[in-house]
Amino acid sequence: MPLGEALRRVTAEPVRAPHPLPGFARSTVDGYAVRAADTYGVSEGLPGYLTVTGAVLMGAAPDVTVTTGTAVAMPTGGAIPPGADAVVMIEYTAQAMPGTIEVVRPVAPGEGIVRADEDAAEGQQIIPNGSVLRPQDLAMLAAAGVTSVRVHARPVVTIFSTGDEVVPPDTQVLKPGQVRDATSSALAALVADAGGQPAHGGIVSDDPGALEQALRAAMGTSDVIVVSAGSSVGTRDETANAVAALGPPGIWCHGLAIKPGKPTLLAECGGASGIPVIGLPGNPRSALVVFRLIGMPLIRLVAGSAAPPPEPSARAVLPRNLASATGRLDVVQVTVSDGVATPLFGASALLSVLTAADGYIVIPEEATGLDAGAEVTVTLYA
Amino acid sequence: MPLGEALRRVTAEPVRAPHPLPGFARSTVDGYAVRAADTYGVSEGLPGYLTVTGAVLMGAAPDVTVTTGTAVAMPTGGAIPPGADAVVMIEYTAQAMPGTIEVVRPVAPGEGIVRADEDAAEGQQIIPNGSVLRPQDLAMLAAAGVTSVRVHARPVVTIFSTGDEVVPPDTQVLKPGQVRDATSSALAALVADAGGQPAHGGIVSDDPGALEQALRAAMGTSDVIVVSAGSSVGTRDETANAVAALGPPGIWCHGLAIKPGKPTLLAECGGASGIPVIGLPGNPRSALVVFRLIGMPLIRLVAGSAAPPPEPSARAVLPRNLASATGRLDVVQVTVSDGVATPLFGASALLSVLTAADGYIVIPEEATGLDAGAEVTVTLYA
Repeated sequence: MPLGEALRRVTAEPVRAPHPLPGFARSTVDGYAVRAADTYGVSEGLPGYLTVTGAVLMGAAPDVTVTTGTAVAMPTGGAIPPGADAVVMIEYTAQAMPGTIEVVRPVAPGEGIVRADEDAAEGQQIIPNGSVLRPQDLAMLAAAGVTSVRVHARPVVTIFSTGDEVVPPDTQVLKPGQVRDATSSALAALVADAGGQPAHGGIVSDDPGALEQALRAAMGTSDVIVVSAGSSVGTRDETANAVAALGPPGIWCHGLAIKPGKPTLLAECGGASGIPVIGLPGNPRSALVVFRLIGMPLIRLVAGSAAPPPEPSARAVLPRNLASATGRLDVVQVTVSDGVATPLFGASALLSVLTAADGYIVIPEEATGLDAGAEVTVTLYA
Repeated sequence: MPLGEALRRVTAEPVRAPHPLPGFARSTVDGYAVRAADTYGVSEGLPGYLTVTGAVLMGAAPDVTVTTGTAVAMPTGGAIPPGADAVVMIEYTAQAMPGTIEVVRPVAPGEGIVRADEDAAEGQQIIPNGSVLRPQDLAMLAAAGVTSVRVHARPVVTIFSTGDEVVPPDTQVLKPGQVRDATSSALAALVADAGGQPAHGGIVSDDPGALEQALRAAMGTSDVIVVSAGSSVGTRDETANAVAALGPPGIWCHGLAIKPGKPTLLAECGGASGIPVIGLPGNPRSALVVFRLIGMPLIRLVAGSAAPPPEPSARAVLPRNLASATGRLDVVQVTVSDGVATPLFGASALLSVLTAADGYIVIPEEATGLDAGAEVTVTLYA
């Protein structure tokens, strides 16, 4: 992948420095390249005197050598001339007479200098395998002259919506009982955020044959399949039946101890190199909550990422008691203002709860609830 | 912008619901639509009996009315039939005989139901102006049938690198004293992260005429101009001179009380509707630190974003004292492990410090330093 398109892509091999970086000893200050020993013992009261024998230009090789008693003018970033082992900052020098400077502070060897291999030695790993490339990683690669990088392909994640009530978002007038497919657009965005390539599987009717056929077709082109299922008991079972019909390894679990999101189905189909299938609850809000917690980490794994990225979060205080059943993980949407996390309630069918939320808190399975005044960590939506 | 391309784009107007959402009263459970009054006083020991007069199908208008003493079978998400004001969960019913159910728990009016306008009333604002669209916002827009949305254009941010020592990243063999342009690639990534459209201005030689000409040309096509300047005193002044030559409003400030990043230049050129110009320090690391703190918020503002997005952060403890000069804001790169933020040191010329870092801490201007054991907030790199 060319560097210009590699932001947030996942490296498929470690990248090593092809040569030492920066490649030559550089000055870190404006001043004079000297032999450090020539400055020992100098002070404001007893300056040392050095003969200026030349100047280094930016981007050019030094054409002069520093010998005892001499100094060479240096710009920040310039190449240290042979013979010099330190650079005196210009602030600690003064022109004594034309061609001679006085130095009023001593420098130690190495002072004012970046070594030729201080950013990286030749062959040193500069980017690990499985890294999600950040802006500064691109800078390091550019500095090393690595202008293309081997990255993992984005996993293709095919997204299906099922339900006889579901119609495309561009349906202008709904018939009674119909709803537009809200989940697919948001799932595609979450897939992209996790480093996947969303593929639009479309809306499949509540018919086990139709779903099985659609899933079978998608298996050939997908790395992960996501089905946002019908929300009623009957259609949930249809999803499970269709997935089961695709063959082993089959269903890992059907139902999770999480609220919202209980009717989630996790499966793997298509033999030894099976394709993960996630069956999401029919309610858009439940589907999006579960997909953040389970789907996005799965996609990051399939994408080759070695570690989850940091997520925005905030510490906040609960203004009221929050009940939670033991043995069930609760995900509660909240707004955050002035350090207070105010829970948002409402049926899991309501999308407005999610759009009003700044983030969510998780009440773990072992907790029976949280008390007013408890400090919680809110995962913030970016 | 079509919904499928609108993720993280900034809305240029509030979006209102074109009709009530979900648009019809829906069941939130599998069960039976009833008149709540018919269930008052029922219990396990004294169930109520209701005649089932029909069933609602998903995506279809109800073809039956609920009257006193009757019930209609409901799937989750189905449209509530006329006459019903609650839905009894199937778990609290049993089939008493064909066509009759017994109900063992009373329901209140509205229970098991989402109102027709509970997600949004007609005309209600569903997305505010200046919002950076999140995945769940796309879901809400899709649910409302809003498949395209007015968004701000991405501000064009033209990025220049200056310095006679700077050569393109694809330069295979460096001459002595040359360095590859590392900053541009990373700045382009940070511009994109902030919602801008990076434009490649290229490398300009250390010649005030050349830079002035390049800036003048870019003013016609850019919303913001970024110059990563030469690092020596002389080339820094050249950037200021070139910017000053572009005319008023002119230079806001030249030099910031921040480390690294002191030689930063902020200016506005091109008259009343002036274009912001940011002159960054020549060291890639300093440039990237300053651009995160000043450039990215500026681009977000120009992009129309009403509020800064949440950033990943972590609380951690310092393992050692950190000195800082009063009156200067210090930005210290750190690694974070097991709740300990370990500072990374090294010349500001070193990119490896930035690639090794997990994030940074800011020591405010008024502080004289931080003590070992101090708790700090680390802004994490995502």
